Amino acid sequence: MSSKPRSRWGWGFAGEMIDEEAIADRKAFLEDELGFPERPVLDPVPLAEATVPEPSIEVPERLAEFCTTDRATRARRTYGMARPENIRAFHGDFEPAPDAVAVPRTEAEVVETLAWASEANVAVSPVTGGTGIAGGTGPPDGDLRAKYAGTLALDLKELNEVLEVDEQSRAALIEGGTLGPDINDQLAAHDLHLRHYPQSYALSGLGGWIATRSGGHYATRYTHIDELVESVRMVAPAGVFETQRLPAHGAGPDANRLVCGSEGILGVITRAWMQVEPRPVYRSDAAVYFDGVLEAAEAIRRIVQAKLYPANCRLHDRVETSLYGLDDIDEELVILGFESTERPTDDDLEHALEICDQEGGRCPDGPDNYGPGYGRERPEDSDVARWGRAFQMSGSVDTDLPLCVVGGTVETAVTWDRFPEFHGTMLENFGDAVEAECGMGHVSTRFTHVYPDGPAVYYTFRAPGDPDPDRRIEQWQRIKRAGLDTVMAYDLTPTHHHAVGRDHKEWYAQQIPENYGESLQAVKGVLDPAWVLNPGVLVDPPETN
Amino acid sequence: MSSKPRSRWGWGFAGEMIDEEAIADRKAFLEDELGFPERPVLDPVPLAEATVPEPSIEVPERLAEFCTTDRATRARRTYGMARPENIRAFHGDFEPAPDAVAVPRTEAEVVETLAWASEANVAVSPVTGGTGIAGGTGPPDGDLRAKYAGTLALDLKELNEVLEVDEQSRAALIEGGTLGPDINDQLAAHDLHLRHYPQSYALSGLGGWIATRSGGHYATRYTHIDELVESVRMVAPAGVFETQRLPAHGAGPDANRLVCGSEGILGVITRAWMQVEPRPVYRSDAAVYFDGVLEAAEAIRRIVQAKLYPANCRLHDRVETSLYGLDDIDEELVILGFESTERPTDDDLEHALEICDQEGGRCPDGPDNYGPGYGRERPEDSDVARWGRAFQMSGSVDTDLPLCVVGGTVETAVTWDRFPEFHGTMLENFGDAVEAECGMGHVSTRFTHVYPDGPAVYYTFRAPGDPDPDRRIEQWQRIKRAGLDTVMAYDLTPTHHHAVGRDHKEWYAQQIPENYGESLQAVKGVLDPAWVLNPGVLVDPPETN
Repeated sequence: MSSKPRSRWGWGFAGEMIDEEAIADRKAFLEDELGFPERPVLDPVPLAEATVPEPSIEVPERLAEFCTTDRATRARRTYGMARPENIRAFHGDFEPAPDAVAVPRTEAEVVETLAWASEANVAVSPVTGGTGIAGGTGPPDGDLRAKYAGTLALDLKELNEVLEVDEQSRAALIEGGTLGPDINDQLAAHDLHLRHYPQSYALSGLGGWIATRSGGHYATRYTHIDELVESVRMVAPAGVFETQRLPAHGAGPDANRLVCGSEGILGVITRAWMQVEPRPVYRSDAAVYFDGVLEAAEAIRRIVQAKLYPANCRLHDRVETSLYGLDDIDEELVILGFESTERPTDDDLEHALEICDQEGGRCPDGPDNYGPGYGRERPEDSDVARWGRAFQMSGSVDTDLPLCVVGGTVETAVTWDRFPEFHGTMLENFGDAVEAECGMGHVSTRFTHVYPDGPAVYYTFRAPGDPDPDRRIEQWQRIKRAGLDTVMAYDLTPTHHHAVGRDHKEWYAQQIPENYGESLQAVKGVLDPAWVLNPGVLVDPPETN
Repeated sequence: MSSKPRSRWGWGFAGEMIDEEAIADRKAFLEDELGFPERPVLDPVPLAEATVPEPSIEVPERLAEFCTTDRATRARRTYGMARPENIRAFHGDFEPAPDAVAVPRTEAEVVETLAWASEANVAVSPVTGGTGIAGGTGPPDGDLRAKYAGTLALDLKELNEVLEVDEQSRAALIEGGTLGPDINDQLAAHDLHLRHYPQSYALSGLGGWIATRSGGHYATRYTHIDELVESVRMVAPAGVFETQRLPAHGAGPDANRLVCGSEGILGVITRAWMQVEPRPVYRSDAAVYFDGVLEAAEAIRRIVQAKLYPANCRLHDRVETSLYGLDDIDEELVILGFESTERPTDDDLEHALEICDQEGGRCPDGPDNYGPGYGRERPEDSDVARWGRAFQMSGSVDTDLPLCVVGGTVETAVTWDRFPEFHGTMLENFGDAVEAECGMGHVSTRFTHVYPDGPAVYYTFRAPGDPDPDRRIEQWQRIKRAGLDTVMAYDLTPTHHHAVGRDHKEWYAQQIPENYGESLQAVKGVLDPAWVLNPGVLVDPPETN
């Protein structure tokens, strides 16, 4: 199992976070290629100098056996991966650190923990990978924190096993704390995998995926974790909530769907039966270039409506590819990929490429067909492979924090009929906000997922931020607000696959019917009557408690 | 719009229900071919002689404009299509008839109706097609009825328009009371259809489909109506509940999924944006024969796990085909069908037939490829076409009621690993119950839908029933109970696509986590605080009110 200690302030592992060469390269690229003003190079505040408040409560003896109050562990479990959290952590501010971190070794210990917390009015933040980027991962802060006697992070990392595999039905019973690579290492013995690869895959795990309705890297069909859940078991303070193992059913509102997206406010997901499958045998992919986002979008619309179901169907605009360092691409890039365990995929790709051709797309590199079914390895020199490496690199080492770059995303989904207008307004408003806050910067666009009725569209900004962390967080908040307000002006969702957390809650409240917010409050009142689970996430109590 | 008056006691239209020739043919078939004891031939009790209690309350003047207390209308809105309901209606028992039938012409009138009902403690039964077969359609009866000052059927038939079509995103805004054929007649002008064909299609409509999580006739992928709902608008007594129009999102537990399956207890579905698509251009189908259900199941498992996604993938055992009158078939019949709007389907069928061949299936008739893409009409003499006609015939005229045949179904879903054992037990227990209650009879098996992890399996019994309607209902209940108890002994669902209603509620309570039942109660308390909507369906109030 992955037991390497993680960084307390960014994506990755402790001790591997600062790469001076990468920082110098990135600094040169930002200043010379992107025209950023000179970037300072900051060092993270060492843990010894950081603010990590002493615990304010003591856990009872019966829990102490699996709890720790170790300073480094509490610091590491203070935050998720939201940008303001990263900034605070980098600069040594661990003010909302939990009073203790519980690492239950059994489900019974989860039950005990929740019983004590409910009794003692201790806020509990369940965590698997801790990679949430919507501010919903860590303990409450400020006024919200003051309502509780204490705070506890509930780390599920010891519940990390694939307990059972049903090869015949292609399903596996997996514990909630199991991280992506550990799931698939254990399934490999059965020649199966869980076909769900969110971008956080290496660092995140099953419970978090289900709690946040994670979206996989697959662009169409069965991308959301919801669609792979056969049954789920959740420990709520009021008792265990376990659904039946069934291929499907139509009996009442689906209980699984209440658990999916519950973001830790209703219970702790301890295990789930998940649909799994063999790895693909046939793969086909291609990189196609278009003159403009709207032209590329039209081809993508036709491909997804033709029900060709590509596994990969991403759009990156030219700003985005240049930010990845693919600076020879001055067009919009569409990546198409097909995969199958059973039948060749070249015809489907061919069909998609015909559609692209009709819509003005160019595929200079041609299609690639590979995998065991084609008796051929993935070519390393293709445009798709080159894109894959650049895309991975862009997420692997965090150079933004040392270089005071402020960056973030707003992602939503919109039907095709309204996409062009929304896209225009969004680029304008987001761009204006970047300019107003930082003087300059870049806004880029991608499609991460596509549906017959519209794309999931993802806007990223990256700008020279202020070296002062408080001011940089303010820059981030204001730019993000401009994007989210635009999204809501079009009555869209403040999140397609990043969850609500605390950062999107203001807009989530606008998104949902008022009656639905009250319904969720009522359900939380049943399952978590003391309101100790993940306070401040999704909904607040009906009245101030 | 379909305005032909419907029968008050069975599937179909008033005045078209008794076909003496069909009854005589069926009588001969049952007695001579199936060995049933001599069947009496009963006539339905005419409306004039039936028990239809006088209304016990009066609707206020402001509602009277769109309400009727007409005796025939109230009789017709007393029941859904559950077999005990049909029997009671055939024999002239309309004891639970609603005091009035409201036919609102606008959503505002739905709001007014619910406001009055909540105030006056009148139970409201929303109805679109009224074809529910789980006892969840009509007003409450007996003790439950006594808790209310009166009862009202809320017939949505005037809300029957396709209000808007977005051809680009392939979506349509459809009113909740629109019946299947009326939906597609209106969409035909746009060369689109709503690809959802439940067996009740001709008589049922959108609101009911969503409220009961209807399953279409398509066997794999996107068969449940839930998967086609883009957004939904529901009038609850507490206010309007409307979700956003979005291709997808991951913000909290999905509000659409609370409405899907709510069975009229949370609100009245007045409209929904639904995903629609062009009609298929390519079709391929074949009939394959197997020696045994388990052999056929193995082929079907491999086909669905190969992700070939047939539109049709049904299994009928030899008992079932003989009950359809296809008596030359003494094997298990598997119907495979593929369809596409965009690409030829012959390869996919070929692939599926190879799998069948490897599992011992025989396809004497060979595959058929047809549709505009193949420049060929559907052949009329194929095995598949012959099956289609027999299957349709078997549902078109109800000869069971006049001939005192007692019949019913239990359908569930089970993972592949447990299917063989469950199937054996189910056939035994169901068969024993039929024998004990009726002396003889038939139990048949089909797969209606299949998933990568298991089939939806459907058991039908048909036996010589007692001419006394009360005794016949008792026979039905006892046989059904034997089936449902078996289902629950295997911890499966009491319904795959027939909904819960009142008939499956006892077993539904065993199916769901206790906390989930309390959660639904809490949500109903928010949305329908006076508990007037569909009393007795899904959940009861926390305490007797």
